[in-house]
Amino acid sequence: MNQDIGQLCANALRVLSMDAVQKANSGHPGMPMGMADVAYLLWNDFLKHNPQDPQWPDRDRFVLSAGHGSMLLYSLLHLTGYGITLDEIKQFRQWGSRTAGHPEHELTPGVETTTGPLGQGIANAVGMAFVERYLATMFNRPGFEVVSHYTYVICGDGDLMEGISHEACSLAGHLKLGKLIVLYDSNGISIDGPTSLSFTEDTVKRFEAYGWQVQEADAYTPADIQQAITAAQAESVRPSMIICHSHIGYGSPNKQDSAKAHGEPLGVEEIKLTKQAMGWPETPEFYVPDEVYTHMRRAVEEGPRRQGLWEDLMKRYREAYPDLATLWDRMWSKEIPENLDGILPSFEPDEKGIATRAASGQMINALAPLVPSLLGGAADLAGSNNTAVKGAGPISGDNFEGRNIFFGVREHGMGSMMNGMALHGGIIPYGGTFLVFSDYMRPAIRMAALMGIQVIFVFTHDSIGLGEDGPTHQPIEHVHVLRTTPNLCTIRPADANETRLAWEMALKRRDGPTAIVLSRQRVPVLDRTKPFGKYGSLAPASHALRGGYVLYSSPNPEIILMSTGSEVHITLEAAKILESRGVEVRVVSMLCWELFNRQNQAYHDQVLPPHVETRMAIEASYPTGWGRHFVGPKNKRHVLGINTFGASAPYEEIYKQYGFTPQNIVAIAERLLDRVIT
Amino acid sequence: MNQDIGQLCANALRVLSMDAVQKANSGHPGMPMGMADVAYLLWNDFLKHNPQDPQWPDRDRFVLSAGHGSMLLYSLLHLTGYGITLDEIKQFRQWGSRTAGHPEHELTPGVETTTGPLGQGIANAVGMAFVERYLATMFNRPGFEVVSHYTYVICGDGDLMEGISHEACSLAGHLKLGKLIVLYDSNGISIDGPTSLSFTEDTVKRFEAYGWQVQEADAYTPADIQQAITAAQAESVRPSMIICHSHIGYGSPNKQDSAKAHGEPLGVEEIKLTKQAMGWPETPEFYVPDEVYTHMRRAVEEGPRRQGLWEDLMKRYREAYPDLATLWDRMWSKEIPENLDGILPSFEPDEKGIATRAASGQMINALAPLVPSLLGGAADLAGSNNTAVKGAGPISGDNFEGRNIFFGVREHGMGSMMNGMALHGGIIPYGGTFLVFSDYMRPAIRMAALMGIQVIFVFTHDSIGLGEDGPTHQPIEHVHVLRTTPNLCTIRPADANETRLAWEMALKRRDGPTAIVLSRQRVPVLDRTKPFGKYGSLAPASHALRGGYVLYSSPNPEIILMSTGSEVHITLEAAKILESRGVEVRVVSMLCWELFNRQNQAYHDQVLPPHVETRMAIEASYPTGWGRHFVGPKNKRHVLGINTFGASAPYEEIYKQYGFTPQNIVAIAERLLDRVIT
Repeated sequence: MNQDIGQLCANALRVLSMDAVQKANSGHPGMPMGMADVAYLLWNDFLKHNPQDPQWPDRDRFVLSAGHGSMLLYSLLHLTGYGITLDEIKQFRQWGSRTAGHPEHELTPGVETTTGPLGQGIANAVGMAFVERYLATMFNRPGFEVVSHYTYVICGDGDLMEGISHEACSLAGHLKLGKLIVLYDSNGISIDGPTSLSFTEDTVKRFEAYGWQVQEADAYTPADIQQAITAAQAESVRPSMIICHSHIGYGSPNKQDSAKAHGEPLGVEEIKLTKQAMGWPETPEFYVPDEVYTHMRRAVEEGPRRQGLWEDLMKRYREAYPDLATLWDRMWSKEIPENLDGILPSFEPDEKGIATRAASGQMINALAPLVPSLLGGAADLAGSNNTAVKGAGPISGDNFEGRNIFFGVREHGMGSMMNGMALHGGIIPYGGTFLVFSDYMRPAIRMAALMGIQVIFVFTHDSIGLGEDGPTHQPIEHVHVLRTTPNLCTIRPADANETRLAWEMALKRRDGPTAIVLSRQRVPVLDRTKPFGKYGSLAPASHALRGGYVLYSSPNPEIILMSTGSEVHITLEAAKILESRGVEVRVVSMLCWELFNRQNQAYHDQVLPPHVETRMAIEASYPTGWGRHFVGPKNKRHVLGINTFGASAPYEEIYKQYGFTPQNIVAIAERLLDRVIT
Repeated sequence: MNQDIGQLCANALRVLSMDAVQKANSGHPGMPMGMADVAYLLWNDFLKHNPQDPQWPDRDRFVLSAGHGSMLLYSLLHLTGYGITLDEIKQFRQWGSRTAGHPEHELTPGVETTTGPLGQGIANAVGMAFVERYLATMFNRPGFEVVSHYTYVICGDGDLMEGISHEACSLAGHLKLGKLIVLYDSNGISIDGPTSLSFTEDTVKRFEAYGWQVQEADAYTPADIQQAITAAQAESVRPSMIICHSHIGYGSPNKQDSAKAHGEPLGVEEIKLTKQAMGWPETPEFYVPDEVYTHMRRAVEEGPRRQGLWEDLMKRYREAYPDLATLWDRMWSKEIPENLDGILPSFEPDEKGIATRAASGQMINALAPLVPSLLGGAADLAGSNNTAVKGAGPISGDNFEGRNIFFGVREHGMGSMMNGMALHGGIIPYGGTFLVFSDYMRPAIRMAALMGIQVIFVFTHDSIGLGEDGPTHQPIEHVHVLRTTPNLCTIRPADANETRLAWEMALKRRDGPTAIVLSRQRVPVLDRTKPFGKYGSLAPASHALRGGYVLYSSPNPEIILMSTGSEVHITLEAAKILESRGVEVRVVSMLCWELFNRQNQAYHDQVLPPHVETRMAIEASYPTGWGRHFVGPKNKRHVLGINTFGASAPYEEIYKQYGFTPQNIVAIAERLLDRVIT
């Protein structure tokens, strides 16, 4: 065909995209068609990557924030040799295929992050660029730029309308992430029609306000795009925004520049016309000229060559800086000490106790020197969340040598940046906010769970126990919201020693995020050695590693009281009273449902003997979800929870008003047991 | 005291705030102290309000977006005569008091919206200003400016860091809400320390990018502030941002300009020093000079006078424009036709059926002419959410006569704007997005529920039934997340006629928000007249008004199958098979748990007879929360749900793979019944 190779490759991206969407009868052809030229140029002229090793640590990261344009990415992966076959392209959006509706990191090699929910990708990218700079600061030495890669993003107007893009981009400018380069597909069309319906802000001025370099370029003038990317690379301080003036569905005679090209197949007839217009054979479908393959598959050899150069550098680096090389390995393997349990400080019994958030803070500070990849901060609540590494400085735009990230009041941005940090590699990110504000970062939490990445959420002020701040700040439904998120591990420890183990679990959990849910108020550090009740003492905290465990039991319990977090202490008080009144009782601390559920049936039966049908759950939280732990008929079970909002008052008063007292637990237990207690 | 009256009033605000926080030993003195002068000037010189009627429709709205500075607002309400007594000020943050930790709309007269979670207030204000302009466009006539009020906001840096402020403010600029005036308490301090730690964007440029008028003023130079507010009022097209350069804890000799002044009491000693510095008597606490009361309580007479003028105007308006006056009354009472059920179109039985989202769209279009206060739109998914009123135009910056709001891809902004719209009065707002993106607006949903305001969320694409878009777009936990939000009514109708009733419930529910959860895919319109199964026919859709109802039953059911939404149809198929195999079965459509829970025990027992212990729930959702509807022991109950993420494929295939087939339901039912079915 009489086209230059660049044009030919861009058209191949268009053809694969529109044919695949048509075959699936579902998908988004307009974005890939509009950005095909830009994407080709970026991948061909600039992107440092190796299709044979998508995990190469120093590769450039490419994030398709406009994830609905997934066929653009699959086409690129196919053409550059990532092992995505043409058959897989033909299986776009089908059961079991690696070419899912939106790019899925966990599914498809070369997909750096799962995107689709708008704004997530660009915020992930900020996290990736953050880690790049962090690791570069830590490891690079004169002549040894072992960390030196760009993070590229293609985003759309939807990404930029979402508030999360504001949060993340404002912070990116603040932190001077000069190696972040965003290519904005400015096509003037959103799903509902022209963006002028709702989006008329001055993008140039907005990103300048955030401290970004902003350029504009025509999406179909290669020199324009090349020049802009080159200038963006040269700008080492400011992140770069390249506004690519583009046309959705570019090349389609009748649907270009129309919302019709956005989210549905072009139609067989229109595809025919489009192929005609671009001088492409109408058949076969999915036709790609050999010269396109030849040209783009150079990446399969070029990639290993570039990676090889880097590996040579690393080899010399290891000789020149053996200590740093060791540290490098520890970070990239996210090493944690083998005998964490033995190393981490434990807490002496203390009736007055400490808040579990404070215990968590001690853990972070104990872990910081032991786990170099652990890095985090808070959304302007470092003091309250106890997330700060003491003695370490803040990370700022001018100094990346600190160890505390100040995310600002940007929970959502923080969450998605953490995801990007984890995805980059080398870092186990953690981030803190109040549990109630986990709402602000719900989409980020869900994406972490979906991708199965190691991210640690530190959620403090976990109940009405936060007291005076009142209902806007008191979580009710949130613990359960976390628990019902697939693949999220939620831990609500009862005391400082359970908190220690929560951190151990979070660090050991590689295949998904963990939420550690912590009290604002002091809770006793349980004395697990001295006698408790009539029959012995409390179980060792180490049992908590199974997610749920018998904290205390009479020999032949008639009733099981299950609880979590700060309510465990009230429950233990109730158990004492019940025992003193002749009721044999068991108290179970059910700190992590996900982990408990994974234990075998024998253990379940040991903790919750099937014959003990009378059961009660006590948790200052919406009273739902406990059904799985109840075995008996309805009149033998009860959840003491909260199905309204909280209130503003000192927390002791709220607990009393809401019925979280030993006396009330005892009264309910009596009712369930249906016996007169003497 | 030798101070001018303005100074004296500002200092009184400071004193009340710091004394109340000290007495409560909890709260945020710094913000009220920093913004006391600005707040005094705004309330004294500009705010059109009537302490004797906080509901006056044409009052200016005042939103304290920085809700942690609640004592500023309570002090203003106390001093201007809203009936908040000094005793109540002394009960700040105590159980049962109207001076809660953060301002609560539902609790305290004069509090226009509940604030505290940052960014919510400013977005609420955008919604209020939106409605002001909408109603002004609809009702004002030459010489009759019956709608003409400003919406004022005091916000802090936290509000501006939150992404939601970006969403809402960008849209406010787009919509040219010239009567929105934001006073930004720019004190350079956030909780963690100086804002320079995380927040260095150029606020002037940012808001100019959104199309706002931006001014700067010194918070302690009254003429400066007065001039800025005057100029903001004069600007009729652009919303106004006034950056007030202020000092947190202003007046405190040792804590001013320090994060220490933000969220904890100043301390007895520092309060003493502060009072000394401002020439205030150290005792008694809460001392307010008489001249302050005299001066500020003028509002108690001035308010009724101004409202009286407006009422005179309204009287003449009613004579001049009787039809508009009738419409006015209908809108402010949020009137809905009495016999909605008779008026709304119902759907003929149809095996092929329609998606419930499509049925919802028909309802919106049927309701639009009947319920003038109904107003809404979608977050760039109007076509998919079926939220558009056909034949009506878009509302744009230049034309407010349309009836479709294009919120852009701004779910969070949409949610909080809807809250502001409802709070303003005159409007029943609705807004649409995919159910999975309810995550993006979680905080707004929660605030609607907390405030108990009538807001209607239209959540479509409610399960794996959305198919190819895959797990990023398939809700799993979301239905349950909504159900566990206190005071939120969640309805998942099974067919078009249940959808009709869902809208009826949502319109009739005045004391809280409703989420209508709708299918992407077609579902049959159930034939409720023709014979079904062995024993009769399906119940009329009207039974759905009780939240849960027996859709079909054999005379002596051995098993109850409970389901919602699109899974009801699969369940009915299963019931038919079970009956054909000799099992007597009941199918319950449990479309709205909140409503069902409110029915009496007799009805519960009628729908779910206690003696039928074998029960199963079928819902393409996280399998939790059904416990309340189970009565029997564990081996007699089962939830067929989804505890993983979804997948990308045609939806029929996903349903099959995830076990949502009549055959699988039958197999599980057989197991539960523990009998050989012949």
